[in-house]
Amino acid sequence: MRNLKCVIAYDGTNYHGFQRQPHQTHVATVQGRLESTIKQVIKQEVDIIGASRTDADVHAEGQVFNCYLDCSIPTGKFSLALNTRLPNDIVILDTTEVDAKFHARYHSQGKKYYYQVYYDQFPSPFLRNYAYHVYHHLDLDAIKDALPYLEGKHDFSSFRAAGCNASSPIRTIHNLSMEQKDNLITFSIYGDGFLYKMVRTIVGTLIYVGYGKLAPAQLKEILAAKDRKAAGPTAPGYGLFLEEIYY
Amino acid sequence: MRNLKCVIAYDGTNYHGFQRQPHQTHVATVQGRLESTIKQVIKQEVDIIGASRTDADVHAEGQVFNCYLDCSIPTGKFSLALNTRLPNDIVILDTTEVDAKFHARYHSQGKKYYYQVYYDQFPSPFLRNYAYHVYHHLDLDAIKDALPYLEGKHDFSSFRAAGCNASSPIRTIHNLSMEQKDNLITFSIYGDGFLYKMVRTIVGTLIYVGYGKLAPAQLKEILAAKDRKAAGPTAPGYGLFLEEIYY
Repeated sequence: MRNLKCVIAYDGTNYHGFQRQPHQTHVATVQGRLESTIKQVIKQEVDIIGASRTDADVHAEGQVFNCYLDCSIPTGKFSLALNTRLPNDIVILDTTEVDAKFHARYHSQGKKYYYQVYYDQFPSPFLRNYAYHVYHHLDLDAIKDALPYLEGKHDFSSFRAAGCNASSPIRTIHNLSMEQKDNLITFSIYGDGFLYKMVRTIVGTLIYVGYGKLAPAQLKEILAAKDRKAAGPTAPGYGLFLEEIYY
Repeated sequence: MRNLKCVIAYDGTNYHGFQRQPHQTHVATVQGRLESTIKQVIKQEVDIIGASRTDADVHAEGQVFNCYLDCSIPTGKFSLALNTRLPNDIVILDTTEVDAKFHARYHSQGKKYYYQVYYDQFPSPFLRNYAYHVYHHLDLDAIKDALPYLEGKHDFSSFRAAGCNASSPIRTIHNLSMEQKDNLITFSIYGDGFLYKMVRTIVGTLIYVGYGKLAPAQLKEILAAKDRKAAGPTAPGYGLFLEEIYY
């Protein structure tokens, strides 16, 4: 059996998240679509292992999965054969053969996400599925002041959604930054891993700082509370992009 | 009667072009959608006059229309009321009251379009509706050399599609440029006006220059031929954006 590692990009708009839904076979998921396409190509049932279980509407520029195949197809031909058959909102960017022990999820050393906010009076028709539209005044300096409180190793229980089954709420954020270009504000976050809906709750809380509903220094108290109710709302999924998985 | 001028943006993906189709009332057009929404707001039948009849799949960042209304609604409230009711792929960016004589189409002094080409081995899931995917080698220097031949005042009959009802094929291109940023190539074109499918035929012909199927200097011959068969193919509509109308 060969172990293939694939890097993929997808527009999450038309999917109910990455992970196959065992009790809803009629529901379109990225994983389900990939598995049925691989089956078409190599005539074998396959279970793929995704690095990150992105939610409904969340996009990926660099999601990774691995899968075990009993088949000698060259890696380049595998990418091409899948891309020919996949819908045009899922693209295989690269396929490589890796060690049999490689596991896309367990061996991830870090993940990078970005989140787009469209900041203008009226929404953009082009970003309606790719950025969270904010039209109330945002104090961007206050948001900038809040960012460092979240960097480093912390108990992120306050930013962890119900249903999270991670064994520990401790995570390290190596870098959290914000960049503005015209009306687009992009938050970039790089860490060793993230709890369920953690990035979106961080963004929702930072937006509350921008609104003046929270002071930047309150981020310290929110972390200390270890209570989801202490943080702000969860920003919508469609603004979020999984940028890269590090191994 | 007041004459209102609106600047609008739309994602053309889900529309059969801007112009209302008289014999296909079931077909969704941007104009049809705008007129029915204005009717909802002001309870009057209205015919809007669009500056440019963009084709199916073509997008706009700065389309302009004007319309005559017998109604005292403030312009800001008009934008807001329409945006609340319009689908999220059409947005009113600005409404102003203009002179009764103002006509969005006849009074246009110039138009600016851009066309996006995604140049990479595999397509981008995010640009599938917004850029033409090209994966064969492109000689970008050759394309750059070809651009100046099209600038200036010419008979553009060779770049005019069948069905064009413009009285003259003479147009002036003030500026035609190409810019590359990572895998995205953007052609910008600014002129006094354009014939039917002229921008897309120019882009399709420039892509042929990039493929080496045409030499840059042949653009001169293509213009001189005054024959649509002399130029390259029409690039797909979804890469085209109407950027601005000048008055």
